[in-house]
Amino acid sequence: MGIGTVSRVINSSPAVRPQTRARVQAVMEELGYVPNPHARRIAGGRSYTVSVLLPFVGTEFYLRLIEGIEEELGEQRYDLALFPLLSKKRLERFLNSSALAYHTDGLIVASYDLAERFPGGRLPTDRPVVMVDARSHEYDSAFLDNELGGRMAAEHLLGLGGPIFAVQIEEELDQAFANTVFSSRIGGFKAALQEAGAPLAAERLYKTRLSAEGGQIALQRFLEVASPPINVFAAADVVALGVVEEAERRGLRVGAEVRVLGFDGQPWTEERGISTLQQPVEEMGREAARMLIERLQGADYPPRQRRFEPCLLVRASTRV
Amino acid sequence: MGIGTVSRVINSSPAVRPQTRARVQAVMEELGYVPNPHARRIAGGRSYTVSVLLPFVGTEFYLRLIEGIEEELGEQRYDLALFPLLSKKRLERFLNSSALAYHTDGLIVASYDLAERFPGGRLPTDRPVVMVDARSHEYDSAFLDNELGGRMAAEHLLGLGGPIFAVQIEEELDQAFANTVFSSRIGGFKAALQEAGAPLAAERLYKTRLSAEGGQIALQRFLEVASPPINVFAAADVVALGVVEEAERRGLRVGAEVRVLGFDGQPWTEERGISTLQQPVEEMGREAARMLIERLQGADYPPRQRRFEPCLLVRASTRV
Repeated sequence: MGIGTVSRVINSSPAVRPQTRARVQAVMEELGYVPNPHARRIAGGRSYTVSVLLPFVGTEFYLRLIEGIEEELGEQRYDLALFPLLSKKRLERFLNSSALAYHTDGLIVASYDLAERFPGGRLPTDRPVVMVDARSHEYDSAFLDNELGGRMAAEHLLGLGGPIFAVQIEEELDQAFANTVFSSRIGGFKAALQEAGAPLAAERLYKTRLSAEGGQIALQRFLEVASPPINVFAAADVVALGVVEEAERRGLRVGAEVRVLGFDGQPWTEERGISTLQQPVEEMGREAARMLIERLQGADYPPRQRRFEPCLLVRASTRV
Repeated sequence: MGIGTVSRVINSSPAVRPQTRARVQAVMEELGYVPNPHARRIAGGRSYTVSVLLPFVGTEFYLRLIEGIEEELGEQRYDLALFPLLSKKRLERFLNSSALAYHTDGLIVASYDLAERFPGGRLPTDRPVVMVDARSHEYDSAFLDNELGGRMAAEHLLGLGGPIFAVQIEEELDQAFANTVFSSRIGGFKAALQEAGAPLAAERLYKTRLSAEGGQIALQRFLEVASPPINVFAAADVVALGVVEEAERRGLRVGAEVRVLGFDGQPWTEERGISTLQQPVEEMGREAARMLIERLQGADYPPRQRRFEPCLLVRASTRV
C-alpha cells in the first residue's frame, strides 16, 4: 500500500475501497496517529472550517440544527465557526472581512434568505453557500414545508370538533432580519380552514411574541369568547406549552377541555404530552452540510431545493 | 525617521510621540497605505483576533456589549470572533480545539463565571481571559453592582407611596449555564425593603421567564390582590414593557395608577417613558476590552475587579 492510499484515507477520499480504508485506519490507530489539522490546512490551502450564519436567538431549534450540521461536517473533518447575525452592519463586515476568524471555506445560512438583501440576489462571496430553514433559488437549500404543516394542523383540529383558535408568532420589533416561517404555518392553516368551509375569524387568531407567557395570555383571550372544549393551534411548541400551563392553572383538562397542537417537535413535548408537527431538524442540518461538502468538492449542479415534510405526532393534548 | 518608527506607529506602540505618530499616519494616508492584517499576523505570530464567549440569547444587552468591546478592540486592530455558548459540550470543544476559528489571542467571557466549572476555578487555556457582566477572583472582570441597583429601586418606589410589587426573572429550564444577575437585583431590592421595615410579602413577588408577556401576566396577578395605585419593580426593561402594555390595555394610567420601574436602561425605554436603572453596557464592554489588551501586551497585575454602578433614570412611568 502506497503513501498515496494512506493520504486518500486520511483525506476521506471516496476513491478508497471500504476494506482498504478500514485497514489503514486500524494501523493508524495502533500507531497512535492523530491527524494534525494545521498540517492539513497548510498543505491544502484551505481552512477546513465552515461558517454557520444564524439568528441570535437561543432556541432549541438552532441547537439541534447545529448538531446536525456538525455531525456531517465533522465526518469530513471540517470545523464549524458560528456567526450569530446580530445586525446588518456585522453581516457586511463578515462578508468583506479579511479577519482570520472569517476565513472559512463555505457558508451555511440559517433561516434568513440573506441573499435577497444584496444586489443580484447573491451574497458578495465566492465561497459556496447553502441555505437551511429557508428556500432559495440562487443556492442549494434545505427547508421545511411550513405551509403544509399549517394545513396538516387544520385538518387534525377539524377532526376533533369544537371551535378552532390559532396563535401566530410575530416578529420582534427590533429584529434586524425577518423570516417567514411562522407566517407560512398560519397561512397554510388558514387556507385549509377556508377550503373546508370553516374560515378562521379574526378574533380567533391571537398574535404574540415568541414566549410561553404569550401562550398563557392567548388561552385567556380565547376563553373570553368561547367555552371549552376548544382547539388551539400554536405555531411554536413553546407557545403551546404556555397554553397547557394556563389550562392547568385554571383546572381545565388538557386534551378534553383544551386541545392544543404545537409545531417544531421539540424533544420535551413528549414528556408534556403535547401534540406537535415535528420538523426533522437534525436531518435538515445534515442535508445542508452534505450539499455544502459536495460544493466544496467542486460539484457544479444548478441550485438544489431539498424540501422536508413535517410529521404529525398525536399525543394526550389532542387525543380526545 | 527610520522604518522602526513607522513600524511602531503601525503597531500602535505607546513608545511613539503623538506628533511623530500623526506625521507618519499623514504620510501613510497620502500613499494610500492600508494595513494588511495577514502580513501583520504572519509577522507577529498572533491572530489579532479575540474570542467573545456569550450566552445565546438575542437581547439588546449583548448587542450593546459587543459594540463596546468592538469599539475598543477595533482601535487596536483586533477582530472579534463571537462564540455563542450553546452547550457545555461546545464550550469544552472550543477550549480544546485546534480549529482555525478558535485560534485567538484572548478571551472575553460574558455573563457566566465559566471558570467555576473547571478544576482549580480556572479555564483550561493559557490565553488571557477577561470576564464581563460577571465578577471573578481569578481573572480581570468588569461588572455591574446589580444588588445596589435593586436597593436603589426599592428606595425609589418607597418614596412613591402605595403597595410595592416585584417581578423576578427566572432562568430557563434548559439553560446550560446559569447567571446570578437577576437574583442579585431582587436580592438587593428585598434587603432594602426589609431594612426599611416594609418587607416584600411572597404574594407580591411574581416570577416569570424573560418576556414582555411575563410582565403582562404579572400585572394581572398584582391587580387581583391590590387596587391602583400600585408600584412595580420589573427586574428587566422588557418585563417592564409588558407591565406598561397590560396597564394600557386595561385603560390604567401609567405613572398615576400603575408605576413601573425597569432595569437595564435599554434605549427604547426613553421613548416609552419607562423609568429604569441604566447599566453602562457599552462602557463595561470597552473596559473589558481595555483590560484584555493590557494583558495581551504583557501586563502582569493580580486580577482586577472593575465595579460599575447603575444610574436611576426617572421618567413618566414613576413620575407621580
